[in-house]
Amino acid sequence: MEKFSISTTTRNELIDITRRVQSAVKDSGVKDGVCTVYCPHTTGAITINESADPSVASDIERKLKKMVPKNENYSHAEGNSDSHIKSSLVGNTVQVILDNGSLQLGTWQGIFFCEFDGPRTRNVWVKIS
Amino acid sequence: MEKFSISTTTRNELIDITRRVQSAVKDSGVKDGVCTVYCPHTTGAITINESADPSVASDIERKLKKMVPKNENYSHAEGNSDSHIKSSLVGNTVQVILDNGSLQLGTWQGIFFCEFDGPRTRNVWVKIS
Amino acid sequence: MEKFSISTTTRNELIDITRRVQSAVKDSGVKDGVCTVYCPHTTGAITINESADPSVASDIERKLKKMVPKNENYSHAEGNSDSHIKSSLVGNTVQVILDNGSLQLGTWQGIFFCEFDGPRTRNVWVKIS
Repeated sequence: MEKFSISTTTRNELIDITRRVQSAVKDSGVKDGVCTVYCPHTTGAITINESADPSVASDIERKLKKMVPKNENYSHAEGNSDSHIKSSLVGNTVQVILDNGSLQLGTWQGIFFCEFDGPRTRNVWVKIS
Repeated sequence: MEKFSISTTTRNELIDITRRVQSAVKDSGVKDGVCTVYCPHTTGAITINESADPSVASDIERKLKKMVPKNENYSHAEGNSDSHIKSSLVGNTVQVILDNGSLQLGTWQGIFFCEFDGPRTRNVWVKIS
Repeated sequence: MEKFSISTTTRNELIDITRRVQSAVKDSGVKDGVCTVYCPHTTGAITINESADPSVASDIERKLKKMVPKNENYSHAEGNSDSHIKSSLVGNTVQVILDNGSLQLGTWQGIFFCEFDGPRTRNVWVKIS
């Protein structure tokens, strides 16, 4: 398993980690298979979406905030139930096909770490199978 | 990696691609493992749900449209932020277990391509690992 | 493929299945790779979230119920369109990295079966690739 860490700077944020994942794939030495990108945190997520125009990521982040407000009638006492709920809606892992050492992404696709309870230092795990 | 393409006919639509995926699996010649079904588009998604009664797929499509309206206060200028958001909510990849060349699906399960910004020609990528 | 079954006790419920998945992994004899946890039902799902404080799981379950009410203008006649929709929002499969026979989960993470149309007996499929 390869690992890397990132620093988030605000409570809700989508960060493009495509280059970091590609670099982790290179470090693994594996050339073909399926690459699992995994978030080991319960208030973050991983998604694949458009990386060309940053307004797409900010629209996703803002809409999730609207659908799942920070303050609602939650029972979890730590004040971050919204973060946990968003993590399960988006999902904490994605799979990308690997061909000859290269991540096979669509033309407009990038891999994003979704921060829902930052700012924090976060870890991303990568495994090729 | 195996690939196939489909044509969608309207803006929002769920299309059952189970047979196409099974056919791609057969073409690969691999008999056992896990089959990754991957959507390389940022305004589409892949989901597994009931394929027996088509009203299930249409209820999913209509509810997503209601939760994420086409017109809201989005910043992305192309008029399809709703499509991108739905793509991240549903997810662009699923995994299905493969046993002796056959996709292992539950009794009522089918694999669907979700079109959120059609009509278009769309690609689906399949890889067994 | 390994299989196990669980009994749910109410209509909407998140059940921690981490130990059962770890036990299935042990039964498989495989030590390294990626573990796919698969729900073969169209009114259930699999998610990874906090397992320490049970109020997180109950907040997720209650928020999903609020976002996708049981009774709305659905066309599917069986009265469980909400269950199918929640299944596609959360997703029916997750992947966890396996290292030396042990599931690699974050400190607070557990694997949950999400029941959206119980009570029922449910199956979970596990495959390492």
